[in-house]
Amino acid sequence: MSDQHSFALHARLKADTFEVIHLPLCRVLLMNDCSFPWLVLVPERMGVTEIHELNGIDRSALIEEISRASEAVKKVYSPDKINIGMLGNIVSQLHIHVIGRYRNDRAWPGPVWGTGPAQPYLAEEAASACERLGRTLALTA
Amino acid sequence: MSDQHSFALHARLKADTFEVIHLPLCRVLLMNDCSFPWLVLVPERMGVTEIHELNGIDRSALIEEISRASEAVKKVYSPDKINIGMLGNIVSQLHIHVIGRYRNDRAWPGPVWGTGPAQPYLAEEAASACERLGRTLALTA
Repeated sequence: MSDQHSFALHARLKADTFEVIHLPLCRVLLMNDCSFPWLVLVPERMGVTEIHELNGIDRSALIEEISRASEAVKKVYSPDKINIGMLGNIVSQLHIHVIGRYRNDRAWPGPVWGTGPAQPYLAEEAASACERLGRTLALTA
Repeated sequence: MSDQHSFALHARLKADTFEVIHLPLCRVLLMNDCSFPWLVLVPERMGVTEIHELNGIDRSALIEEISRASEAVKKVYSPDKINIGMLGNIVSQLHIHVIGRYRNDRAWPGPVWGTGPAQPYLAEEAASACERLGRTLALTA
């Protein structure tokens, strides 16, 4: 069985996100917090917690998918800056945050993590955001 | 003139760090804050603020150098987790934080940015840390 077939998304990531699209390496998720345009990329590899544990081929794929996600957030939301983070202090399954930031958002210029309770999307807003982001990501091959 | 020859490190990054080593793409710096084992990688490319603005060759080099930095911090300091961040909300010149984290450090499990004043190294401690990190990085080609 390939890693991809045995892959299971961490329960916390599953609970906090909507699925946007599958890219060759990563599952792309939308964080259920409309305070920020916020994607999470999860390489579909089990047991990996650090970037240096991926092999070189996966690392190349990962940086291309991070770049595509960054470009998609920029195109759809026109933020002032993109923030990228791989922390994993709470959920150790390797996952990459790609977040659009604005000079007037509530956490600027600090990082977003831990700055307040999530503002959940309305169902139709989440569906619309996933659709736009998925379509834009599919175009940035 | 190549990008590399016209490259200038942002004054704030220069003021806050010690130089560890030059890798093929990035200048590797040690943050002058001994609260955390903390490297900063700066691709020697002028005018780049987002990862999707680098070309594909540079992106591949970047992820390999991030991986090497992550591995070096792990080897030298044995942290519980590596945190990687590309924010740029204050200093827009593209730079990547690679930080060793411990379950008992002052910011765990949150991110380190903005969690308190930097604890500057003593000169001999900084020299020793740069030497060990530089030697370890040179070995992880």
